[in-house]
Amino acid sequence: MSALLDALRAVLGDAGLLTGGDLAAFETDWRKRYVGRALAVARPASTDEVAAVMRLCHEHRVAVVPQGGNTGLVGGSTPDDSGRQLVLSLTRMKRVREIDVANASLTAEAGCVLADVQAAAAGAGLLFPLSLAAEGSCTLGGNLATNAGGTQVLRYGNARELCLGLEVVTATGEVWQGLSGLRKDNTGYDLRDLFIGSEGTLGIITAATMRLYPQPRDRLTALAACGSLDAAVALLGLARERAGDALTGFEVMNQASLALVARELPLLAQPLPSVPWTVLLELSDAESAEHARGVFEGLLEAAIERGIVQDAAIAQNLQQARSFWHLRESIPLAQAQAGLNIKHDISLPVSAIPGFVAGMDAVLAAYLPGIEVIDFGHLGDGNLHYNVQAPAGVDPAAFMATHEAAINAKVYDAVQQRGGSISAEHGIGRLKREELAARKDATALGMMRAIKQALDPLDLLNPGRLL
Amino acid sequence: MSALLDALRAVLGDAGLLTGGDLAAFETDWRKRYVGRALAVARPASTDEVAAVMRLCHEHRVAVVPQGGNTGLVGGSTPDDSGRQLVLSLTRMKRVREIDVANASLTAEAGCVLADVQAAAAGAGLLFPLSLAAEGSCTLGGNLATNAGGTQVLRYGNARELCLGLEVVTATGEVWQGLSGLRKDNTGYDLRDLFIGSEGTLGIITAATMRLYPQPRDRLTALAACGSLDAAVALLGLARERAGDALTGFEVMNQASLALVARELPLLAQPLPSVPWTVLLELSDAESAEHARGVFEGLLEAAIERGIVQDAAIAQNLQQARSFWHLRESIPLAQAQAGLNIKHDISLPVSAIPGFVAGMDAVLAAYLPGIEVIDFGHLGDGNLHYNVQAPAGVDPAAFMATHEAAINAKVYDAVQQRGGSISAEHGIGRLKREELAARKDATALGMMRAIKQALDPLDLLNPGRLL
Repeated sequence: MSALLDALRAVLGDAGLLTGGDLAAFETDWRKRYVGRALAVARPASTDEVAAVMRLCHEHRVAVVPQGGNTGLVGGSTPDDSGRQLVLSLTRMKRVREIDVANASLTAEAGCVLADVQAAAAGAGLLFPLSLAAEGSCTLGGNLATNAGGTQVLRYGNARELCLGLEVVTATGEVWQGLSGLRKDNTGYDLRDLFIGSEGTLGIITAATMRLYPQPRDRLTALAACGSLDAAVALLGLARERAGDALTGFEVMNQASLALVARELPLLAQPLPSVPWTVLLELSDAESAEHARGVFEGLLEAAIERGIVQDAAIAQNLQQARSFWHLRESIPLAQAQAGLNIKHDISLPVSAIPGFVAGMDAVLAAYLPGIEVIDFGHLGDGNLHYNVQAPAGVDPAAFMATHEAAINAKVYDAVQQRGGSISAEHGIGRLKREELAARKDATALGMMRAIKQALDPLDLLNPGRLL
Repeated sequence: MSALLDALRAVLGDAGLLTGGDLAAFETDWRKRYVGRALAVARPASTDEVAAVMRLCHEHRVAVVPQGGNTGLVGGSTPDDSGRQLVLSLTRMKRVREIDVANASLTAEAGCVLADVQAAAAGAGLLFPLSLAAEGSCTLGGNLATNAGGTQVLRYGNARELCLGLEVVTATGEVWQGLSGLRKDNTGYDLRDLFIGSEGTLGIITAATMRLYPQPRDRLTALAACGSLDAAVALLGLARERAGDALTGFEVMNQASLALVARELPLLAQPLPSVPWTVLLELSDAESAEHARGVFEGLLEAAIERGIVQDAAIAQNLQQARSFWHLRESIPLAQAQAGLNIKHDISLPVSAIPGFVAGMDAVLAAYLPGIEVIDFGHLGDGNLHYNVQAPAGVDPAAFMATHEAAINAKVYDAVQQRGGSISAEHGIGRLKREELAARKDATALGMMRAIKQALDPLDLLNPGRLL
């Protein structure tokens, strides 16, 4: 190992290789459920340095764990506890290489913080729409390696749909120069999408060209009170029909989740009375604030007339719009204050969601009376965070220890029966590796393993993650 | 071979296996440049039958050429002349299996004709936006295998962006059940996008789940006269900013292409005077015809004020809108009437297009005075059909024989220098296989070959195409 470390130091310099001192920030995952020990942390400053690191690791048969902002939720970006895996941190590669306004595209390095990419696009008068809670820390490379989602997927898609081209270093240290500003290119297999979402197990993404969009003239946000999840689904259909692509957000929150926010964060204003389901809608308008307001008012009036919506509030200004979003975003925080809980990041066809939720709520209530389901998420994408908390008065840690496996099995079985996914946006990492192996179509798993073997035969890239 | 044919007949019945008679329709490509000879034509009626065919062909080591509507332009779907390749025609698998209105998705079999998929979506009050010249004959499976583009890519993307999930039969006759109505699913490698665009070389697509969209309330079409390609690019930026996603079409036609239409199809009305570049714009509006007209008028007035547009005509009714599109779509027909020509289906970053066209026009004029460039296409996607015709009075066949290779090299070299693609939407097939091998990034080619080897080690799936 010391020969490898010497060779790495010769390539990277002292600033580019951390071997001693406190490496805990690189060795511990965001939710502090995985604590590992790294052989060292390599911090290359260029694609050539990444390629040199991979060539050396290939030569010495040392496994590499690529890491961006280390904000992932499934344990995919920290080393195991063997002390034999090299953490490859991309955070020094943070240059925006090019903004092409006429082509509406931007090329940036993997270590760029997402908020910096957004700011660079805004500086050129354009919008980079990827947006998620960790945007101040997470990096573009990590967003792509995990195919990140967030709050604007309904209109703009995941990280995958926003990417035009990639630069990737392979397991043997070759560089694939696949950066491209092209909207259309039918010259062979879609390698780009193979790397996106592969969680660092097939290659190291070092840079990407991303799509930009016109900045909307105005954004309007509203809350709507629905009596049932069926009504919320009907509202989604009506909003799509009336607003078309101007509909950029459609989030739901069940009664228990807003009650929890009221308990844990009592200072947060809740503009609507407590109802079974509260919907947050966002419109982004290419014309004007007046036009957006007209569309929104027409939509909500029609929805109230049809009995889909009981009550609604349109934000009167930017500050109020932020407070509506803040309500939605504070649910995980309120959950954290209330103690440990069982999180699920599931997706289903939108049409299957009301039946799934009604059925599963009943199953869990029968399984453990008093159990609390904190259910919220991106209904427009069919993606729910269907989280489960201990009954009042029950110790959360004891609840987790006793019930987590059984509740996961119930939820995932029902999701699978209805054609859903056990990981809508967070990925697999180490957390859901066994679930994936047990639940994914066997033919698909066989093809995934064959591809891994073809591109990384020595299993040096993030081993033990995903597959 | 006769043992294989007996076994296939036992599985498929007499209606499902054609061995004698006239098989020319299956053996000859759309442009009649490739004429082959098939061992037989298998016409399975179900996914299970496709799987059985693949298992038998695998056992007997016989290569399979999957075929849909056989409308491809690069020789990818007809057999070679060995008489040893089995044509696998999917056209009997043409059922629309499901339409899920609340989820805005549709599941159909590979052999469904594209126009029938569009009609099924319209019957459910929704839009399936994929649209191209061959839509009355081409099939959904072929559209996906070649990642088809067409006229609505600017807003809705290629076949790839419209696909949510696939059902695929592998080289060994296993079935991957990857049909899915999910908008979000981060459970492993993106196999779906690997099969899309792989031209039948990695597996047989037997069914797909596709995205549907709300039907726009109204569509408006306009023609705009621009003095230069730079002005057309500026108009694109302005239209994106003003109309947002309502902009669903942005096509350009150079002066020579409309002059050719005037010569060959003199009965077609040309509403604008002859200018260097004519732009066809289409807006799809979620609100009303009046709203669309207001946006369009505002946009064109602003463009005229800024000197980007010299003159414009908004279609006054559906019939006139059709005549505008017909003008654009008649260019290939006018070219066919005028005789053989050298076709290019290239893409570039939009920002690079004016420079490319000016440079290449000059290079070709110097190479062969009087040469005609018929240049038109989907400027909004950066995709041009940059076609080259013999000078007036020169025999087209002699021109092709003498100059095709040299002109291809000039065009493709310049495209490559500017970061473009030599096949934007038509694919590789047999026509561009050597070009791909010579021009694609070597690391990318290596990965493509490794993936092919991993999923089809005996090279039974459409051998000699793409790779």
